[in-house]
Amino acid sequence: MEEIKSDATSLRHDDILPQIHKVTSPPKQTLFQEIKHSFNETFFSDDPFAKFKDQTTSRKFILGVQSVFPIFEWGKGYNLQKFKSDFISGLTIASLCIPQDIAYAQLANLEPHYALYTSFVAPLVYAFMGSSRDIAIGPVAVVSLLLGSLLTDEISDYKSHEYLRLAFTATFFAGITQMALGILRLGFLIDFLSHAAIVGFMAGAAITIALQQLKGLLGIKHFTKKTDIVSVMRSVWSSVHHGWNWETIVIGVAFLAFLLTTKYIAKKNKKLFWVAAISPIISVILSTFCVFITRADKKGVAIVKNIKKGVNPSSVSEIYFSGKYLSAGIRIGVVSGMVALTEAVAIGRTFAAMKDYSLDGNREMVALGTMNLIGSMTSCYVATGSFSRSAVNYMAGCKTAVSNIVMSMVLLLTLLLITPLFKYTPNAVLASIIIAAVMGLVDIEAAVLLWKIDKFDFLACMGAFFGVIFISVEIGLLIAVAISFAKILLQVTRPRTAVLGKLPGTTVYRNILQYPKAAQIPGMLIIRVDSAIYFSNSNYIKDRILKWLSDEETQRIASEFPSIQYLIVEMSPVTDIDTSGIHAFEDLLKSLKKREVQLILANPGPIVTEKLDASKLRVLIGEDKIFLTVGDAVETFGPKGTNL
Amino acid sequence: MEEIKSDATSLRHDDILPQIHKVTSPPKQTLFQEIKHSFNETFFSDDPFAKFKDQTTSRKFILGVQSVFPIFEWGKGYNLQKFKSDFISGLTIASLCIPQDIAYAQLANLEPHYALYTSFVAPLVYAFMGSSRDIAIGPVAVVSLLLGSLLTDEISDYKSHEYLRLAFTATFFAGITQMALGILRLGFLIDFLSHAAIVGFMAGAAITIALQQLKGLLGIKHFTKKTDIVSVMRSVWSSVHHGWNWETIVIGVAFLAFLLTTKYIAKKNKKLFWVAAISPIISVILSTFCVFITRADKKGVAIVKNIKKGVNPSSVSEIYFSGKYLSAGIRIGVVSGMVALTEAVAIGRTFAAMKDYSLDGNREMVALGTMNLIGSMTSCYVATGSFSRSAVNYMAGCKTAVSNIVMSMVLLLTLLLITPLFKYTPNAVLASIIIAAVMGLVDIEAAVLLWKIDKFDFLACMGAFFGVIFISVEIGLLIAVAISFAKILLQVTRPRTAVLGKLPGTTVYRNILQYPKAAQIPGMLIIRVDSAIYFSNSNYIKDRILKWLSDEETQRIASEFPSIQYLIVEMSPVTDIDTSGIHAFEDLLKSLKKREVQLILANPGPIVTEKLDASKLRVLIGEDKIFLTVGDAVETFGPKGTNL
Repeated sequence: MEEIKSDATSLRHDDILPQIHKVTSPPKQTLFQEIKHSFNETFFSDDPFAKFKDQTTSRKFILGVQSVFPIFEWGKGYNLQKFKSDFISGLTIASLCIPQDIAYAQLANLEPHYALYTSFVAPLVYAFMGSSRDIAIGPVAVVSLLLGSLLTDEISDYKSHEYLRLAFTATFFAGITQMALGILRLGFLIDFLSHAAIVGFMAGAAITIALQQLKGLLGIKHFTKKTDIVSVMRSVWSSVHHGWNWETIVIGVAFLAFLLTTKYIAKKNKKLFWVAAISPIISVILSTFCVFITRADKKGVAIVKNIKKGVNPSSVSEIYFSGKYLSAGIRIGVVSGMVALTEAVAIGRTFAAMKDYSLDGNREMVALGTMNLIGSMTSCYVATGSFSRSAVNYMAGCKTAVSNIVMSMVLLLTLLLITPLFKYTPNAVLASIIIAAVMGLVDIEAAVLLWKIDKFDFLACMGAFFGVIFISVEIGLLIAVAISFAKILLQVTRPRTAVLGKLPGTTVYRNILQYPKAAQIPGMLIIRVDSAIYFSNSNYIKDRILKWLSDEETQRIASEFPSIQYLIVEMSPVTDIDTSGIHAFEDLLKSLKKREVQLILANPGPIVTEKLDASKLRVLIGEDKIFLTVGDAVETFGPKGTNL
Repeated sequence: MEEIKSDATSLRHDDILPQIHKVTSPPKQTLFQEIKHSFNETFFSDDPFAKFKDQTTSRKFILGVQSVFPIFEWGKGYNLQKFKSDFISGLTIASLCIPQDIAYAQLANLEPHYALYTSFVAPLVYAFMGSSRDIAIGPVAVVSLLLGSLLTDEISDYKSHEYLRLAFTATFFAGITQMALGILRLGFLIDFLSHAAIVGFMAGAAITIALQQLKGLLGIKHFTKKTDIVSVMRSVWSSVHHGWNWETIVIGVAFLAFLLTTKYIAKKNKKLFWVAAISPIISVILSTFCVFITRADKKGVAIVKNIKKGVNPSSVSEIYFSGKYLSAGIRIGVVSGMVALTEAVAIGRTFAAMKDYSLDGNREMVALGTMNLIGSMTSCYVATGSFSRSAVNYMAGCKTAVSNIVMSMVLLLTLLLITPLFKYTPNAVLASIIIAAVMGLVDIEAAVLLWKIDKFDFLACMGAFFGVIFISVEIGLLIAVAISFAKILLQVTRPRTAVLGKLPGTTVYRNILQYPKAAQIPGMLIIRVDSAIYFSNSNYIKDRILKWLSDEETQRIASEFPSIQYLIVEMSPVTDIDTSGIHAFEDLLKSLKKREVQLILANPGPIVTEKLDASKLRVLIGEDKIFLTVGDAVETFGPKGTNL
């Protein structure tokens, strides 16, 4: 038990010990090395240039091309076997994508063909540049709703040409934002939207979207433009007597029941996932046929009506690069681009972890950015990875991004040949498809888990959720970000401290609250500080340590224990200390001197050691008061025989 | 060496061990207890109500009054001895205060008597409510400059009555802000302005203030209203030929030399501090007399001219509670109130640490807030603690806040009797007094220390400094806050991780970079994560751990070491984990399984243990893979004989 010892303990220096270890400073680094190191850790922690090292120029060029277009990397090993899988999954997601697209376009207040355009161009671009093998690219419900909501805030007349132009402008800047984050390697910024906040936001958005569908499902003509639950419900009730159309309700409810049943079947038996995957297109075909036969549209059943044939026209000249809508376009683009990114990256990460391949977040952002940039010039709006379609893609056995290419080709054929057939598709069935699709975004299990694991996370989740459903999508998002930030700030201002005790029969010191067997040492108080000591918490930590000291002293005097002579601060978790922290320790030292208590540090880490040296605090505390472990310190200054 | 062992190691469970310790969860807390605990730690970490416990109602009332008016607490022990000390220090700071006040009022573009009013009312209020014994209250240079700069941004004509009214309005809201922060116990918010940022900001402000004094010192008539160094120097050069007044320069430079000499003497011999303390009032008296005798004011030497006699008139009706200036008043009040608070709290803490008495930050804020609130109604502007006068107060041997009362009384007599005598005081001498005073705010030693200890702190310092001198006071402040925040965010997104090795002859595992002697264990990789694992860093930590693993594997294969079978994560510094962190660990587990590496956790803390339980991750990892120490884990799964 005696082997661990600092050689600072001059008194017992002559005892024969097998090994002597001292708290040392790490090898000195030059300023340049130091800056380079932190810069690399911050922006290049994944070391993307490692593979370029020691390569010939031509090899470097090939690697460079491959890192921008991963298709040239994995394409080499592509074979017929893989293509079969990709072909089937591509067809499956295409069949799911077409009806969803037509429906989601309505959430963005755009005509249906713009969503179909998006599902043709975006997956094609992504397949060449993206590195996820499972993601299914296209318009998604939440981003469509967010975009529609932000755009109508600017231009309330969503049938105007300005509205469309602003949508392209926003898409353009969403692409720019995504690319910029990737190129500047600021991808970690999206991590500030916590998982908990996303769960709440998604659920809120799903419910908002579902409520919006009451318009289509009930055949209501005059519907509120607001998205909060109160306005929507009021709108629904006020139209009970004259606004509802029973034929619409029959179609809507029947197909909703059908879609939910297939979903339930797919959930119960994972092998039947395709039942749920093809049910939307079946619903569309069936309902369109019914309406066409019965001419129910003449009885007030709202239908899609005109849907343009042909492929994407250019929209470069439609983007606002100046004028009064430019700033709105940038703002909407940045917000929807970030949200789209969050969704795509979350999906990418989930499936990458499932199949254990690595995903370069920053490169992924460049791919998504390029895709939206090109999209904005070819009459598309913001696309990203879809939760539901990606899951189907994965379950259908996709191997590579080729499934996205297959989907894109199906969409091309659809645009060229069969779009006019959707003319008689009733809006009610689209509403059912949306409702069935977004229900998957309400993840009650995740919310329960949040409650169990972390109450603060649950609060963030609920904040975002209620913000979205009671106020608006943007406010919900804002609340989510604000709560996430508050959590970070709380963490850095109020770090934890713990009193340690010795586990009987060991030299291990642990939190006495976690290990009630751990015993305190007479005459000593051992405190562990559980955080880097920075300006934001240095005063709190100092005051907290002094408070522990006062509390313990009062208690020990009451129980007639010897008074405290040594305060040991276990520094293991203190990874860094800044000048404010150093000053706080100086102040602590002064206060302790007045109280005739000696300060001892145990196990300061490399950076702390360096800064203790630089600030002369090490000399002030005394070289013989700095130990490698708490055990060593107790051994040296504690009552005899404590460590036996 | 064998004593520390987890009983999870079933294989060796039968070895005879003196003690067996297992990683345990802390005693369960109810949700209410949990919330109460974190609420208390965040807002009531100093436990202000402890003394009220178990007291009679009348005693509680007395304690309540004492906690709002500490004067009734320390007043009981007050005696003649203390009064003598306080009287002398009070007189000393008053003699320093009067000339400084007249000068500082000009920085705020207010007439001199408003600063004198402030020095009469504010210290009086503070003496009753404040808990610092050494602080000297009154107008200060930096806040005066900031206020003047913010006010002229709103109302450029500073001779207008609106300007004065806006000044009172800002003072009112500065008081409200300070009180609110104290009452809501949000005092920790000012900790977000880091020490480093304050050093830079103060130095920048000092230089800006000194440059502004060139107007008075050189007798320039047409001077720029901007505060940045470029505008000021241009203004100075452009007036070289016709704008300078030699009589003014003679007076200014002569007295500046005198003031700096006395400062130098006081610095060399601490006992002669009073020489520097009374030199400003001597300068004022001498220069005023000179100008009066020679009638130099007729030769172009600018003088104070009219200075009002009498005490503070009420200014309640002057405050804007509505109208277009209300929002500006609130904004300016919040900013200047926060900056004033930062200065006062920094001073309070410094002297409290020197004399080891405790200072309740939140109560202090209520005192300062009340003081400014009352000030705004009695024709005062924002007051706070002055660095220079507090130091003089301390050195003159003040014992309690009575020295502030003495100063206040001297100011009262000055206002009643001798203000007209300042009519002939030349502006040049006031400029000299300001320059001599603010030079103390440029703390080069502190900046050098920042450079030595923490490069990022130095960056924050320089950012604030150059922001103030090249752009404006507000921008400098903004840069300081922004850099401080960036540092916090960087800390939480990119925490450190370290590879650990075994110190020979011990069971202690330390960072191999800090202790080059520490040896890695064959077949195992031990990584310490140095931060709580939150949504902001969970993905980074997971990726970083996997990267360590890949790097080490490549290296070990190259050196023909056995491949890695166990990954031990030392969790001691991981004080908390949220749901994103749990998910990251689940993903890590999946990736490790594919690579056939087993995950082992060492020493998870109380909160982490609780969350591992709640999320079932503990079961997923396996009870037998969670150890109390790294040593235990190596003992169980490592090569035989490693721990011997």
